[in-house]
Amino acid sequence: MKLEIDKRDLLGLIGKTQNIVEKRNTMPILVNVLLEADQNSLKVFATDLEVSLTDQIKVQVHQAGKVAVSAKSLFEIAKELSEGPITLIKKENNWLEIKQGKYTSKIVGISAEEYPIFPTYNSQSFMTINAQTLKEMIDKTIYSVSNDETRYHLNGVFFELSPSTGFKMVATDGHRMSLVNKPVSEVKVNATQGVIIPRKGLHEIKKILEGIEGNVEIAIEGSQFVLKHSSTILMIRLIEGKYPNYQQFIPQKLPQKVMINRDAFLTSLKRVSLLANTKSKAVLLNLSNGRMEISSNNPELGDAKEEIEVDYSGGEIKIGFNAKYITDILTSMQHDKIDFELNDHLSPGLMRPHNDQSYTCVVMPMRI
Amino acid sequence: MKLEIDKRDLLGLIGKTQNIVEKRNTMPILVNVLLEADQNSLKVFATDLEVSLTDQIKVQVHQAGKVAVSAKSLFEIAKELSEGPITLIKKENNWLEIKQGKYTSKIVGISAEEYPIFPTYNSQSFMTINAQTLKEMIDKTIYSVSNDETRYHLNGVFFELSPSTGFKMVATDGHRMSLVNKPVSEVKVNATQGVIIPRKGLHEIKKILEGIEGNVEIAIEGSQFVLKHSSTILMIRLIEGKYPNYQQFIPQKLPQKVMINRDAFLTSLKRVSLLANTKSKAVLLNLSNGRMEISSNNPELGDAKEEIEVDYSGGEIKIGFNAKYITDILTSMQHDKIDFELNDHLSPGLMRPHNDQSYTCVVMPMRI
Repeated sequence: MKLEIDKRDLLGLIGKTQNIVEKRNTMPILVNVLLEADQNSLKVFATDLEVSLTDQIKVQVHQAGKVAVSAKSLFEIAKELSEGPITLIKKENNWLEIKQGKYTSKIVGISAEEYPIFPTYNSQSFMTINAQTLKEMIDKTIYSVSNDETRYHLNGVFFELSPSTGFKMVATDGHRMSLVNKPVSEVKVNATQGVIIPRKGLHEIKKILEGIEGNVEIAIEGSQFVLKHSSTILMIRLIEGKYPNYQQFIPQKLPQKVMINRDAFLTSLKRVSLLANTKSKAVLLNLSNGRMEISSNNPELGDAKEEIEVDYSGGEIKIGFNAKYITDILTSMQHDKIDFELNDHLSPGLMRPHNDQSYTCVVMPMRI
Repeated sequence: MKLEIDKRDLLGLIGKTQNIVEKRNTMPILVNVLLEADQNSLKVFATDLEVSLTDQIKVQVHQAGKVAVSAKSLFEIAKELSEGPITLIKKENNWLEIKQGKYTSKIVGISAEEYPIFPTYNSQSFMTINAQTLKEMIDKTIYSVSNDETRYHLNGVFFELSPSTGFKMVATDGHRMSLVNKPVSEVKVNATQGVIIPRKGLHEIKKILEGIEGNVEIAIEGSQFVLKHSSTILMIRLIEGKYPNYQQFIPQKLPQKVMINRDAFLTSLKRVSLLANTKSKAVLLNLSNGRMEISSNNPELGDAKEEIEVDYSGGEIKIGFNAKYITDILTSMQHDKIDFELNDHLSPGLMRPHNDQSYTCVVMPMRI
C-alpha cells in the first residue's frame, strides 16, 4: 500500500473513527482503524463490535493494499503535520510509514486479516429522514436513557416507525420518560418493528448529523441500525430485549393544568436548587392560584425559595421533584411556554411544550 | 449587617476569593469568606492561612456588621441571580439572607470572630513594578517549579531584588532551571534578601495582574509577600528554607552554539514526541553541520524523526532531552530565534532567546 492524501482529508477521515475505537484496551485490536487502499480511494473502517463506521475518500494511490494501525496515533500525527499532501506507505511487518517533507515516522500496525469484518447490509431497505429532525429526536430523548447497566434494555432509545403512527423515540430510566413523535409525512417509511439503539450509537449518529442540512438514509436490518450519508456508513448493533410498554406510563386526564414560562422556570430552578440536597437535588413546588413557589433545603448549606407567576387556577398542590430532571426537560424544549399537568403529590407529572402533543415528558415526584 | 450590592460588584468581589478558600475541607472554617460591612463599604477577606486576600467596594449599607459564609455558595448564588441590586442581611445564628425580587435564600454562616485574622503589613516598604513585567517574570519561571513535596524549598519561585542586580526570579525542579532578570531601572527598589514565593501564591498574583496595564505595589514583610492594587491586597506566606545557589547551575562557556528557529523547533518536537516514550518523552537531538535531526522511539507505538535547518558549524553531537522540558522553554519565549548552547551529551544545555541575556534556561540531558 502506498498513497498520497491531503492532511485535511486524512484528519477528516480518521477523526470520524476516534470515538468508535476502544480506549480501554479490553480487546487490543480494537484500538486500530483498518486502512484499505484500492485503485483510487482510501477506505477506513473502525469498530468496537457494537458501533462500526466506514468511510472513504478519493486519493492518489500508487499501490493498493491494506493494514490496521492505531487510530489515535495516526490522528494525532496527522493533526501535527503541516497542510498539504502526506504519504502513507505500508512496510514489512505491517508498519505504516507516514511521510511529509523531512518528517518520517513509522507506526506499529497489524495485519488487515486480523481485523473484524464490517457488518453487511441490504441496500434495498433504506428510508430517508431529514438529518436535523433525527438529531432533534435524539436530543429530546437521550438524556432520559438509563445509566443502570443491570437494566440493559433501558440503556438505549426505543425507536419505532410505522406508516400509521410515524416516527417515535422513547427513553426512560424509571424516574422519567421522554417521548417524541414526528408525523409520517416527513419521512418515507416502510413498516418496521420497534428497536432499541444503544447510547454510544446515538452519540455517533448525532456526530454525523451535525451540520447536515438535507436528508440521510436509515435502515433497520436484522440486529443492526444503519445510517448512510454520502460516503459514510454507520452501523449500530441494537440492544436485544423487550422495551417496556411505555404508553402505560403516560398519565391520562390529569386534573391540574399549569402553564409556565419556560425561561422563568429554568432560571428559578437553577438558583433554588443550589441549596438543595447535593445528591437528590430535591425541590418542592408549591402551586396556588396564579403562583408557584419553588423551594429547597439543605441542612449543611442553607435554604432557598422563589415565587414565579404561572397560569394556574386549581387547588393548592405541594409536590417534590428532582430539579435536574425538570431542568433537563426544560432545556430540551424550545417553546416559550410549557404545559405542566399534575394529579397529586404522589402521582407523576406530565410536561409538554404548550399546545404541542409531539413531545411528552413524564417525571416521577419525590417525597420531601 | 444589612446592605445592598449590585450583582456584578458582588460577583467580582467574591470571584477573587474562589481559588483561595480551601476546597478539601481540611479546616472546615477556611471554606468561608469573611464579609464585613461598615458605614459605606463591603469588605471581603479570604485565606487558606498561606494565601490571603482582602478587597472592598462601596455599597449602600443599612446596618454595619460582619459574618463569614461559604465562598462557593455565595458565588454560585450571585452568578444565578439577575442583573441589579441584591440585598444581604445577617440573621440570627450567623445565617446570611440573600434577597432579590421574589427570590430569598439563607446560607449557613459562622461568627466573624471565629475566622482567622488578616495578616498585618507595614505600608512604608512598598515598591512599584509594572504589572505585565511581573506577570511575564512569573510566566517564564513557574513551569520549572518542583512538584516534589519532599523538596519543599523548591515548591516556589525564588524572588530576589537588589539595587545592583535588579529583579530576579528563578525556579528549578532539579531537571531544569529558569532564570529571568529585569534591570533595576524598571522598578523603584529597596534592597531586600531573596525570598521563595509558593506556587499557589504565584497563580493568585497572576490572576490579579491579568488585564492591569499600569503598576502594582509589592513588598516583602517578614515572612509575607504583599501585593497591592487599588483596593485589592494579596498576602502570601513565604516558603521558609534556603534556596540553592542557582548561579552554580548555569554552565559557563559552552563550546557548541546552535541558533534555531523557535517555531520550527516547536512544531517538530510536537510531531516527533508523539512517538516518544509516554512517560519520559525522550527525544534525541542529532546535530551536525547546519542540521538538527530530532528523533524518538517507542517500541509499543513506533518511531519518528524530522530534520530541521539550524545555524550550527560545530562537530556532531547526539544528546537526549525530555521533549516536554524543551517545549515548555520554547513556549515561554517570544523571540523568532533561540540560542541553544551545549557541551557534550552528558552536560546540561543552555537556552536563551537569541542575543538576550535576560532569560536563561538550563536543561539536563537524558541518556537514551
